[in-house]
Amino acid sequence: MTQKIFAELVGTAMLLISVIGSGIMGVELAQGNDAIALLANAIATGCMLFVIITVLGHRSGAHFNPAVSFAFFLRGELTFVTFASFVIAQVVGGVLGVWAAHIMFDLPVLQVSQTLHRTGGAQWFSEILATLGLLFVIFGGIHVGKKAVPTLVALYITGAYWFTSSTSFANPAVTFARGWSDTFAGIYPGHIAMFIVMQLIAVLIGHFTLGPLLDE
Amino acid sequence: MTQKIFAELVGTAMLLISVIGSGIMGVELAQGNDAIALLANAIATGCMLFVIITVLGHRSGAHFNPAVSFAFFLRGELTFVTFASFVIAQVVGGVLGVWAAHIMFDLPVLQVSQTLHRTGGAQWFSEILATLGLLFVIFGGIHVGKKAVPTLVALYITGAYWFTSSTSFANPAVTFARGWSDTFAGIYPGHIAMFIVMQLIAVLIGHFTLGPLLDE
Amino acid sequence: MTQKIFAELVGTAMLLISVIGSGIMGVELAQGNDAIALLANAIATGCMLFVIITVLGHRSGAHFNPAVSFAFFLRGELTFVTFASFVIAQVVGGVLGVWAAHIMFDLPVLQVSQTLHRTGGAQWFSEILATLGLLFVIFGGIHVGKKAVPTLVALYITGAYWFTSSTSFANPAVTFARGWSDTFAGIYPGHIAMFIVMQLIAVLIGHFTLGPLLDE
Amino acid sequence: MTQKIFAELVGTAMLLISVIGSGIMGVELAQGNDAIALLANAIATGCMLFVIITVLGHRSGAHFNPAVSFAFFLRGELTFVTFASFVIAQVVGGVLGVWAAHIMFDLPVLQVSQTLHRTGGAQWFSEILATLGLLFVIFGGIHVGKKAVPTLVALYITGAYWFTSSTSFANPAVTFARGWSDTFAGIYPGHIAMFIVMQLIAVLIGHFTLGPLLDE
Repeated sequence: MTQKIFAELVGTAMLLISVIGSGIMGVELAQGNDAIALLANAIATGCMLFVIITVLGHRSGAHFNPAVSFAFFLRGELTFVTFASFVIAQVVGGVLGVWAAHIMFDLPVLQVSQTLHRTGGAQWFSEILATLGLLFVIFGGIHVGKKAVPTLVALYITGAYWFTSSTSFANPAVTFARGWSDTFAGIYPGHIAMFIVMQLIAVLIGHFTLGPLLDE
Repeated sequence: MTQKIFAELVGTAMLLISVIGSGIMGVELAQGNDAIALLANAIATGCMLFVIITVLGHRSGAHFNPAVSFAFFLRGELTFVTFASFVIAQVVGGVLGVWAAHIMFDLPVLQVSQTLHRTGGAQWFSEILATLGLLFVIFGGIHVGKKAVPTLVALYITGAYWFTSSTSFANPAVTFARGWSDTFAGIYPGHIAMFIVMQLIAVLIGHFTLGPLLDE
Repeated sequence: MTQKIFAELVGTAMLLISVIGSGIMGVELAQGNDAIALLANAIATGCMLFVIITVLGHRSGAHFNPAVSFAFFLRGELTFVTFASFVIAQVVGGVLGVWAAHIMFDLPVLQVSQTLHRTGGAQWFSEILATLGLLFVIFGGIHVGKKAVPTLVALYITGAYWFTSSTSFANPAVTFARGWSDTFAGIYPGHIAMFIVMQLIAVLIGHFTLGPLLDE
Repeated sequence: MTQKIFAELVGTAMLLISVIGSGIMGVELAQGNDAIALLANAIATGCMLFVIITVLGHRSGAHFNPAVSFAFFLRGELTFVTFASFVIAQVVGGVLGVWAAHIMFDLPVLQVSQTLHRTGGAQWFSEILATLGLLFVIFGGIHVGKKAVPTLVALYITGAYWFTSSTSFANPAVTFARGWSDTFAGIYPGHIAMFIVMQLIAVLIGHFTLGPLLDE
């Protein structure tokens, strides 16, 4: 159990390092062309997701995402204690990952995001679809065979950076952690709650709709 | 049967979300450099194709494309009723996907494309080759083993965005749906019919030429 | 036998469509930033290589390259007649592919390249290394298991567009065919012969050096 | 044994060709947009890593990295003589690879890097994390199944170019060799030692921390 929780913490920290670090590097080099920065951001995140899900999947299930853990809890595949422990590990890991990225790039460790555009109905709708899509590839992937999941999640998120207006946070721990970084991938703390609400709504929608689509 | 049709509708909607959404995001960020926008467009579409074909392949065959369904119908592997139901699901799904993308990016839901350059002999020839190539990888992939198909289609289309002048619509439902979006990936409605004619001509050509190339 | 030759012709045509077509599209959209054009060129070629080697590998071996066929001939795995037929099919297919790309992009079919920078000792050395690397991944891949070859060749060439100064033609049929296109991927006809000589020298070097490296 | 050492030398040379060559090409074409140059650099290196680990893995283990060989030595899976021979082969191979890249791009063979920004605490911390991450994917990958390693390492490094501030040298032989190139991927020789110290510290940290995370 301790090992599982440790795996969730380490994996989520690595995920946030990839999200925040590549965003900083992308903006630093892209001369104001945010499309190139976002491309770097999307590719780096996709690469990291493949890596951490492959390596830690057999350990904890490699959720790194309270929304995903919540979905497994709703399906009765996770006890409440495990679910709660995972969420804490994911949130702590996420914030540690953000701080590690700041240290690597010689930035103040403690920051609060001033990125103000991640709000409004369109973005919220985007987060619902983004999270639904993530659950679709995870549970669809498990149906096809667990070995398919790392590739599915990595490619889905790489694409979803582009085809959703919110760039697919789709993860409450990631959303919370990104509030603590005033860099490319940040989100103004006042806008975090609604993103997380949308992600949880998506889990509920997915709980009732993905079954008929994916199960025999 | 209902599940198959539902899978075709959902998958085609997801495909169009990736095509339209990433086109909008790409143009928004690329500062007028359409090559970067097209790169985002191609990568996001490829990622989504891999995901939806992997997850829904065992459900409906994962056509998401009336030209592909037509090819299976010609080979006698689809009844006319299934074929017709698939086409309807694909067209409805495609349009719903376009609308979902518009909502995510806070754009008017109902739009008509004013993109006027997708016409003329060169583009039509491009659509014939693009569709032939798609059938080549699908039926060639099935020959090699069904597990190869998601990767083959995803990589083929990612490349074909670049090596065909029409950016490889190669799909009547996608073509029709893209008429309803006045964004990067749009096509003027008056030019849709000829694209679809070319795609269907390619199915007929493929029906008679791919056999000798691919079958023992 | 006819089927094999047909497969070599079709595959090489598709390869050249990807090389020439993506080069044209890249330059058209990249606003003079040749790095973005080359990125499109490299990705599109890699995608196509994966696709044609996967689909046609069991048919003809998927050489699409006289240098590769020559290497198999030297190892006694190809009769002279097959080797010669393959080379003819590859050259004819390559030129047809170039012409198909021109038609798709509404350019004059018959062109002669005026690209003058593909010559000199550095480029020739680059072609030797590029071709040696290609043979290394092909024969090394066969050693590991034939299923590895499409991915190996596709990724090798995608990378080699960047890490060799000649962008890794590494293929006499491709080199010859690219002489007939005055676009991004072209090569001045007067510079073709030396590129091909270097590629064949690499085959000879590889014939004597890859054994000790790869075989038990 | 000779074959193993030869494999380490050739593989490391190929790795450096990809790192240095793609850096030169990227800068040459990217019109000052270093993000595009780094993207080329990252993709080309990732492609090469996949290729050389896949082809030479069964031969020498495909370390191409004294830090990785050191980690295997600490685990008792490499004798001291093999370890020392590997390191020499990797260093020699690395320098030869740099020189080969210079020749291909028509640059003076002997150069000393003047790139001065690869130093300071943030960069050193970055190298520790980068190397720890590399060991995580290698030993985690072996745990999952050796076939996973080429993809894991290739994707990890492609991403790590972006999410670490040092662009993840994570390899003493690569670090040393890059001191001999005054191009995009270079490092001022006076800054090499600290990078290598950090990489070795990471091996020691990894030796005591990765066990509890990865092993049953």
